[in-house]
Amino acid sequence: MSESVKIFKIGGNVADSPEALAAFLDEFVAVEGRKMLVHGGGKEATRLCRALGVETEMINGRRVTGRDTLDVVTMVYAGLVNKRIVAMLQARGCDALGLSGADAGIVRAHRRPAQPVDYGYVGDILPQGVDTSRLLGFIDQGITPVVCAIMHDGEGTLLNCNADSVASSIAMALAGVASVELIFCFEKAGVLADIDNPASLVGHIRSRQLPSLIESGTVSGGMIPKVENAVKAVEAGVLSVTIRSSKGITIPGGTRITL
Amino acid sequence: MSESVKIFKIGGNVADSPEALAAFLDEFVAVEGRKMLVHGGGKEATRLCRALGVETEMINGRRVTGRDTLDVVTMVYAGLVNKRIVAMLQARGCDALGLSGADAGIVRAHRRPAQPVDYGYVGDILPQGVDTSRLLGFIDQGITPVVCAIMHDGEGTLLNCNADSVASSIAMALAGVASVELIFCFEKAGVLADIDNPASLVGHIRSRQLPSLIESGTVSGGMIPKVENAVKAVEAGVLSVTIRSSKGITIPGGTRITL
Repeated sequence: MSESVKIFKIGGNVADSPEALAAFLDEFVAVEGRKMLVHGGGKEATRLCRALGVETEMINGRRVTGRDTLDVVTMVYAGLVNKRIVAMLQARGCDALGLSGADAGIVRAHRRPAQPVDYGYVGDILPQGVDTSRLLGFIDQGITPVVCAIMHDGEGTLLNCNADSVASSIAMALAGVASVELIFCFEKAGVLADIDNPASLVGHIRSRQLPSLIESGTVSGGMIPKVENAVKAVEAGVLSVTIRSSKGITIPGGTRITL
Repeated sequence: MSESVKIFKIGGNVADSPEALAAFLDEFVAVEGRKMLVHGGGKEATRLCRALGVETEMINGRRVTGRDTLDVVTMVYAGLVNKRIVAMLQARGCDALGLSGADAGIVRAHRRPAQPVDYGYVGDILPQGVDTSRLLGFIDQGITPVVCAIMHDGEGTLLNCNADSVASSIAMALAGVASVELIFCFEKAGVLADIDNPASLVGHIRSRQLPSLIESGTVSGGMIPKVENAVKAVEAGVLSVTIRSSKGITIPGGTRITL
């Protein structure tokens, strides 16, 4: 097992705001050790769809991706947002390399079956779809990979993936060859027992506690799938998953999920 | 001097057409030896500008790049066109890696001075702005770099560059450490002494012949800057520059310019 790798994932609240992004990246470059970044950028994509008159349909919180929408998300995630982040990191002395799943074949996805819901060009990733030696090879050259959520099927088709799932899949794959910490950064402090009280932060969750925490209402609403995914990742060998604010990432904080 | 590197550059006539692109890439993957690809994609960018109501102003054949136009070309070149090419190459068994100049810091540009003409976010590349060891390092890992014309200034700002100039600058920089052939692929067979007669192809031009060829009218119109750039490249150490059709690239053809 080689030294650890930290995988940070940022969502639209950070990626879509130049100020929030700059503040996050200032701290990200100060994080020590081997690291990489996975980003979304959904709000910017929704804005471009609207400007182009491309209909945005969401089912169960996932974007239905027709041919035109695929072009839009490819432009926004792999182009606008990814290159903006890479240029900002380079300016901060961090040797960033922007990647889609197709680049250097780092992540292959498969198109989601059209039944029961046809999401169009939407992909899911199998952990064996991640080329861990290529990714670690880049990192060991001093490169910081910056991965957007556009993957490919290996047969020439690009696929729109969920950025949380991309981060989890990469973390689970790398867990086979490295000690991996996965950090989801978002707008809240972490899992709050009382959603209106920031002081009610749950600092640590063990995977086996999840059912009772859901039953008691400590983990509720939109936090349930996030913590479920975290539990899945630690059960697959990821050392820890942290759900936390995008601010102050160089110091410990948020909710840490472990076995 | 290490073994040779072939740098292919394709313009909008290939990059913007799925059929022409597929045909080109079928042949590109069959080219033996170390290689890379530089691409434009201007027509697609003009189309997106029009759809978004972003004004496209051209001065001396160069796109004036305001903030909105920069976003559009970043999305189209680094996102849509670059990832489309990379996914198509991966499907053909070629381990392509899409790159802007910011990625892994491979090419740094500087913003063109606002005098005499303010082109906005338009950059020019100095040969010393190319990180040749990074680029060759990727190639020696079996990776085929696919470079779009979006560069950065190293201070966080992306810059729109001319794809021909990007290809030439990379070629001239690599010429210091490798034997470099630069191949510009476009819609014509090469330099035609009589523009209406494909049989009048000029097969070989030595750099010192250029002035007399311009005087005699053999090299005329839009071909003058292309051949002038080629002469500049061979005088800077590039082994040869070929201006040729994007079809049939695995067999010799077109106009070869050497010292």
